[in-house]
Amino acid sequence: MTTTPHDAGIASLGEYTFECGRSIPELRIAYETYGEFTGDNAILVCHALTGSQNVARTPEIRDPETGGGAGAAADGTVDAAADENGDASTDAAAGDADEESPNQAGQARAWWDDVVGPGKAIDTTEYYVVCANVPGSCYGSSGPASRRPDDVDSDREVDHDRWALDFPPVQVADWTRAQRRLLDHLGVGRLRAVVGGSVGGMNVLDWGKRYPDDADYLIAIATAARLDPQCLALDAIARRAIRSDPNWNGGDYYGDRPTPDTGLGLARQIGHVMYLSKSSMDRKFGRRSAGRDSLTRGEGLDVPENPTAAFFPYREVESYLDYNAGSFAERFDANSYLYLTRAMDEYDLAGGYADDADALAAFTGEALVMSFSQDWHFTVDQSVDLAEAFRDSDVPVAHHRIDSDHGHDAFLVEPESVGPPVRDFIRSGTDGKSVVDAAEPAEPVTDGSGASHAPVHSSLFSG
Amino acid sequence: MTTTPHDAGIASLGEYTFECGRSIPELRIAYETYGEFTGDNAILVCHALTGSQNVARTPEIRDPETGGGAGAAADGTVDAAADENGDASTDAAAGDADEESPNQAGQARAWWDDVVGPGKAIDTTEYYVVCANVPGSCYGSSGPASRRPDDVDSDREVDHDRWALDFPPVQVADWTRAQRRLLDHLGVGRLRAVVGGSVGGMNVLDWGKRYPDDADYLIAIATAARLDPQCLALDAIARRAIRSDPNWNGGDYYGDRPTPDTGLGLARQIGHVMYLSKSSMDRKFGRRSAGRDSLTRGEGLDVPENPTAAFFPYREVESYLDYNAGSFAERFDANSYLYLTRAMDEYDLAGGYADDADALAAFTGEALVMSFSQDWHFTVDQSVDLAEAFRDSDVPVAHHRIDSDHGHDAFLVEPESVGPPVRDFIRSGTDGKSVVDAAEPAEPVTDGSGASHAPVHSSLFSG
Repeated sequence: MTTTPHDAGIASLGEYTFECGRSIPELRIAYETYGEFTGDNAILVCHALTGSQNVARTPEIRDPETGGGAGAAADGTVDAAADENGDASTDAAAGDADEESPNQAGQARAWWDDVVGPGKAIDTTEYYVVCANVPGSCYGSSGPASRRPDDVDSDREVDHDRWALDFPPVQVADWTRAQRRLLDHLGVGRLRAVVGGSVGGMNVLDWGKRYPDDADYLIAIATAARLDPQCLALDAIARRAIRSDPNWNGGDYYGDRPTPDTGLGLARQIGHVMYLSKSSMDRKFGRRSAGRDSLTRGEGLDVPENPTAAFFPYREVESYLDYNAGSFAERFDANSYLYLTRAMDEYDLAGGYADDADALAAFTGEALVMSFSQDWHFTVDQSVDLAEAFRDSDVPVAHHRIDSDHGHDAFLVEPESVGPPVRDFIRSGTDGKSVVDAAEPAEPVTDGSGASHAPVHSSLFSG
Repeated sequence: MTTTPHDAGIASLGEYTFECGRSIPELRIAYETYGEFTGDNAILVCHALTGSQNVARTPEIRDPETGGGAGAAADGTVDAAADENGDASTDAAAGDADEESPNQAGQARAWWDDVVGPGKAIDTTEYYVVCANVPGSCYGSSGPASRRPDDVDSDREVDHDRWALDFPPVQVADWTRAQRRLLDHLGVGRLRAVVGGSVGGMNVLDWGKRYPDDADYLIAIATAARLDPQCLALDAIARRAIRSDPNWNGGDYYGDRPTPDTGLGLARQIGHVMYLSKSSMDRKFGRRSAGRDSLTRGEGLDVPENPTAAFFPYREVESYLDYNAGSFAERFDANSYLYLTRAMDEYDLAGGYADDADALAAFTGEALVMSFSQDWHFTVDQSVDLAEAFRDSDVPVAHHRIDSDHGHDAFLVEPESVGPPVRDFIRSGTDGKSVVDAAEPAEPVTDGSGASHAPVHSSLFSG
C-alpha cells in the first residue's frame, strides 16, 4: 500500500484575541498534514463537534503497539484519547458501523479514513491535506482543558493548573481564524478546497464568508447556515446534564478530582440519538434485548440502577448508548463539550450581513452542498436553503442529495456515497462527473422507479 | 353554561396482583366521572404519560379560590398538583398553547377540557365519562409515591413511609385491569367507547386485546402498537437523568429529603422535545433570545450555571423548557416517571399473540385510529400499520390522518381537528360524518389543491 508523508504537531501561534474580545497569551493549535505541499494543492479538512486533527490512519497509528502517532504530539491534555489508540470494542451492539467507527476510538482517531488517504476520494498522493483541532477542543489545541500559563491568574480559587471556565468563549469564527493562522505558519496561502461535515460544514461556510478569496472550492456536508430550535433545545438539555453532574464542580474538576463522566455521558447520549435516524435505529437495534439485565452490565454509563428495572429488558439500544457514553467520557473533556456546542448553537452564517446570500456574496469560488435524506440534525431542507443562498450570490453551486437511512452519521459512514462527488468536485467543481445537483430537472430518470426526486447515486447528470 | 354531574374519589379495590406476579394488599384508584350513567353511555378516557383523572374543568376547580375539586380527593400524595390549581404562568415563552395548556398545570388538571364537557365532542350531557389515574402514577392511585401499608416491610432501611421502589413494576396491562375493576366497582359493564392518546392510546389498544367484548368503539389517538427504538432510547436517557441526580437516592427521597427535581426536570425536557415538531418549535421560538442572560433567570430548572455562558444568549426555547421543567417537577413524582415510562417502553400490542392483528382478532367493535402528520413520537406510519392490523382482523377501522405542524402535542392542542371525528365516531362508528379514512381512495378531492393525500379537515367522505 502506498504511504504518503504525514506530519503531526502543535503550532504555537502567539497571542490570540477571540471574537468575544478576550485574549490568551499563546494560541496552540494541534494539527496534522497528509501528503506533500506543491504550492496549489492544499485542502483544509474541518472536523465535526468532537473530532480531532487525526483525519486518516497513518503508519504510526496503524500499529497499536507503538503508542506513537498523533497522540504523541499532544501536549499532555489528551492522555485519554491516546489510550484509545487502536482500541477495538468487543461489544456486539457497539460493533456496527456508526459515528464511533472505524476504529471505535470515535472521532478522536482516523475519523474520515475511508475518504482521506492514498488513492481515496481526497487523495493524499495528489493533495496536501491539513486538519487542525479547533480552539476549545481537547486534542492538543488551546481549550478549557489545556494548561493556563503561570502568569495568568484565575479570579477563582482553584486547585489545578488548567484554564477551565476561565478560557474565553469560543465561536466558529475563532476556528476559522485559527486555521488561517496555522496555514500561514505552514506557508499555505490559497486553498484548493475547504471541506467538512456537520458543524465542520459551518466552519467551511465561515471560510467562504471570512476569507472569500482564499479557497477555490467549498464542500459543506450535512450542515446548515444555522441550527434549528429543536437542535438548540437538545444541545441546551445536554449542557444542563453536564452542569448538573456534581463532579462538574463549576468546571473545576481537573487535577485529582473525579470527572463529570455521568453528565458528559448523558449529553453524549442525547447527541448520539441526533446522529441516527429512526430507520437506522430500527435496523441496528429494533426493540431487541441485549440478553442481560441492566443490573449486571459492567460497562458504559455509570448511574445508580433502579432495582425494579431488573424486571424489564436491558435493550440493545441502551447497551449501545451506554457503551458509547462510557468510551466518549474517556476521550472527551466535559468543558470542551460545553464550549463547542455553544459555538455550534451560536453560529449564524448571516451574522453581520443582511442574509445568508449577502454573507457569501464575496466568495469567488464554487460550492458543493451535500445532504442526506434522513438526517434530522441538519436537514435536506436546510441544505436546499443553503444552496439557494449560494445561487443568489451567483456562486456556482451543486446541492448533492444522498438517499440514505443512516441519518446524520451518513457523512462519516457512507464513503461510497460521499467519496465520488467529493473527489470529482475537487477536480472539476460543479462540472464534476459524480456531482449531481438536486435542483436540476429530473427528466433523465431512466431507472424505471418512477421516483419523483433526482437520482443521486448515479452520474446521469455528469458534465 | 350547562353543568353536568361530576364525581371524584378514590376507590379501594382490594388486593391486586400485578402482571409481573407481585401483589399489593390494597389497590387504590383515583378517578373522576362526568355526566350521568344511563346503562349504555359510559366512555372510558385513558390519560397520557403524566396525565391525571381530571380530564375536564369542573365547577369545583373553575374557581382557584376554593382549593377544592379533584385535588381534595387525593390521598395526600398529590399536594404539589393541588397547589397548581388554576395557577397561570406569566412567562411569555410558556404562555403558548402546548402540552402544558390550557391552565398551565399541565396534564394534572383539565387536560382535555376542549374535548370533554357539556356540548363538547365527548358530550357529558349525553355520555358518562370515566377517567382513572393509572397505577404507578402519583395523582392519588397506588404507586411508588403512595403510602406503604404498615404491615408491608421494605427489604431496605428507609426513613419514610412510601412504597418507593418496593412498589411492583407496572405495565399497561395493569392499567387496563385496574380500570376494569374500577368500572365493576362503579357498576359499569360494557362501554360505549374507550378513548385515549399517546400511551393512553396504547391503553385503548390493550382494552381491545384484553376485554374484546367490553367496548363498542376504540379510539386510539397519536399512538402505536409499540414504541420505536428512537423513542426507547430517549426514554432510557431520561430515566438515566433521574437516577443520576444525587437527590434521587435510590428512589428514597420521600420524607424530609430533597427531591430529584433536576433529574426529573431534565427527563421532562427530553420528553418535551419529543412532543413538539421542528415546525412548531420554529414558529414558537425560532432562535430568539429570551431577552435576559442565563445567569439572571430566576425560575425553572435549577442547575449550576457556566459563567462563560453569560456571553451567549439565553434563548426562548431554553426559557420555555426550563420553566416547564420546573413546574413539572412540582407536580410529578420522579419514581412515577421511571415506572410509567417503563410501562410505555415495554408495551407491545402483539405480546402473547402471533402479531398485532392476532392480538386484536377477538375485538367485536369498531376502531378509529388518528394520527398527526408531524408527530415523530408516534408516527403516521405507525398508525398506518395499526389500522392495517385492525383491517387484517376484520375490525371496521378508519385511520383519520390530520395535517398539523403541532407534532405529538396536536392531540391535546387541536380540539378543532380532533373533536369532530371523535364526536361522530362515538355516534356512528366508521360511518361518522367527519370520520375520514386515509386509506380510502382520494378521487373526490375537489379543493383544487392537487394534494396527493386525502383531505382530512373536510367531511367530503361523510357516510
